[in-house]
Amino acid sequence: MTQPFSADDYQARMARATAAAAAASLTGLLIAPGPDLPYLTGYQPVAITERMTMLLLTERAQPVMIVPRLERPDATDAPVTLVDWTDGEDPYAVVAGLLDPDGRYGISDSAWVLHLLELQSRVPGASFASLTKSLPMLRAVKDADELARLAAAAAAADAAYHDILNVRFAGRKETEVAADLAARLIAHGHSQVDFTVVGSGPNGAKPHHEAGDRVIADGDMIVLDFGGLRDGYGSDTTRTVHVGAAPAAEMRKVHDIVREAQQKAFEAVRPGVPCQEIDRVARRHITEAGYGEYFIHRVGHGIGLTTHEPPYMAEGEAQVLVPGMCFSIEPGIYLPDRFGVRIEDIVTVTEDGARRLNTTSRELATVS
Amino acid sequence: MTQPFSADDYQARMARATAAAAAASLTGLLIAPGPDLPYLTGYQPVAITERMTMLLLTERAQPVMIVPRLERPDATDAPVTLVDWTDGEDPYAVVAGLLDPDGRYGISDSAWVLHLLELQSRVPGASFASLTKSLPMLRAVKDADELARLAAAAAAADAAYHDILNVRFAGRKETEVAADLAARLIAHGHSQVDFTVVGSGPNGAKPHHEAGDRVIADGDMIVLDFGGLRDGYGSDTTRTVHVGAAPAAEMRKVHDIVREAQQKAFEAVRPGVPCQEIDRVARRHITEAGYGEYFIHRVGHGIGLTTHEPPYMAEGEAQVLVPGMCFSIEPGIYLPDRFGVRIEDIVTVTEDGARRLNTTSRELATVS
Repeated sequence: MTQPFSADDYQARMARATAAAAAASLTGLLIAPGPDLPYLTGYQPVAITERMTMLLLTERAQPVMIVPRLERPDATDAPVTLVDWTDGEDPYAVVAGLLDPDGRYGISDSAWVLHLLELQSRVPGASFASLTKSLPMLRAVKDADELARLAAAAAAADAAYHDILNVRFAGRKETEVAADLAARLIAHGHSQVDFTVVGSGPNGAKPHHEAGDRVIADGDMIVLDFGGLRDGYGSDTTRTVHVGAAPAAEMRKVHDIVREAQQKAFEAVRPGVPCQEIDRVARRHITEAGYGEYFIHRVGHGIGLTTHEPPYMAEGEAQVLVPGMCFSIEPGIYLPDRFGVRIEDIVTVTEDGARRLNTTSRELATVS
Repeated sequence: MTQPFSADDYQARMARATAAAAAASLTGLLIAPGPDLPYLTGYQPVAITERMTMLLLTERAQPVMIVPRLERPDATDAPVTLVDWTDGEDPYAVVAGLLDPDGRYGISDSAWVLHLLELQSRVPGASFASLTKSLPMLRAVKDADELARLAAAAAAADAAYHDILNVRFAGRKETEVAADLAARLIAHGHSQVDFTVVGSGPNGAKPHHEAGDRVIADGDMIVLDFGGLRDGYGSDTTRTVHVGAAPAAEMRKVHDIVREAQQKAFEAVRPGVPCQEIDRVARRHITEAGYGEYFIHRVGHGIGLTTHEPPYMAEGEAQVLVPGMCFSIEPGIYLPDRFGVRIEDIVTVTEDGARRLNTTSRELATVS
């Protein structure tokens, strides 16, 4: 079991964020509910709504968090100064009063535009920038405690995959297998299931198809991509399986190409390599095998408190890899109206290479 | 069973939204994933992420939706023109190219600031306004099919409440009762559980307390506030119960005051009354009873595809009630470190008054 993060941990993170903001010539940071707020304070409101909650970090003052009065009792553990506002009052005036009239602020990517538009209107001389564009490394390098949580989440997802290989596929709807997957993730300790893609036959050629009423048939290839949160941190793994013992030759071939591309990309991971190189390595292999036009997404994304965050393994990302980064490697080939194949592991950058957090077999498995 | 909404329904909604935008002197609307996008198109991406999906509605052109290429296959049922972008390409350039250089656009409240900041940078002469501030009535008046879904969601939540009265409370943790509530909502047809507040004893005095490790004891008052989505539409109801047959005199008294305030607010609902009047009626009753300082939130919020949306029953909301609006009436009294009471129904405005969608008894119930 991992230890809970402490107020000291959060204070250290806030201090690091504040220093990074200053180094990036930002006056301060506006942190909204979503992944950034619990990362920095341990606090997350029970629901993200139109009622504004916002943490302000600056070098000049102690951290201040503006919260709706009715949620104040839930926020008292956060190591910050609380300022509350009541329904009918104007929370933006409170925040605006704390901002430099011509300051430059980083703001959480997923903050609602509702709030930003009000702040821009109240403090017209201030400017605002996306937090991940300004400070992409803020949550990208995981410490040992975070890595332990991500490894545990990956192990739980792997256990769910082992379980699902033994359920019946043929004759059942995708949604039924998806429900089995969700139940297995919960049984293995996930608190939340975020996605259970069961893309059978032609549906597998739609990378973000979730699960539908299609009845799975013998001879189908099936993309299984699933994950959620365990102990606050994300899991995300994909395997492609075949119903019945005799996959067609092209199914085997495409699966081999994707598996080789995933392996080559994994072997390319080490400190100092630009993120985009990981994408290029996988893409080159698939392109040379003649399937480049069917690999229609980047090869990976960071993972932590969310299942999509920097660093992105994509063309144009020049950021170099650093030990402690955790991200997916998930090449795929999608043949429209026929089938798809994707293989995905979460990996972490080590001092001299990489380590997979997902360790189930990447060979083409057979289900019944 | 309700019928699925059709492409005609969505086209009619988009036409109405476009006309309303023009009437509000807006050049167009930028609609993001969240409640607005499925309301207008029937489409919602499987996850809301940093990858931009955005619908543009203007009077000059047909609706255009920009989608990530890997999600395009899932969006083809939406009655709009699709424009896709691939990882590594710049989706903002696509949208910016479709905007008037000095246009004025309404944008979904919950759109990510990540996207707005990019659009502001690409089209510096354009201005943007919150959709609910610009067009608060866009989703506020429900049609008959929506009302049927909200009524079914409320009936399912009521059934879950009836069930929960028969489970054991004393000696169990709040989280265990919350899990029971979640299971009952699912059993009665909810696809998603959004909140299961079990605020026992002093925790009931924290309005947005969810559920924790506190073990429920005989003599506790317990605030039960729960809801989620059924057939796409929200439920949200609150009852306060007592463990054991003999509530203390002040518990009875406070419960009576809240119940009377809720009834008076309900009786005040009819077309033409300003929203803030509903809040005032409930607040006046509680204040006259001597508990005004302990009623620390507005009395209600609209409900539909989300559980918080216009119209808000709050001081300062001059919008008048219109038949078909659906919202909560949920006064509460919160005595710090002691207990809380809240009673909440979803109601709809009729031609000459109001109708409750939640119909369970509002008398103080006893649990064991």
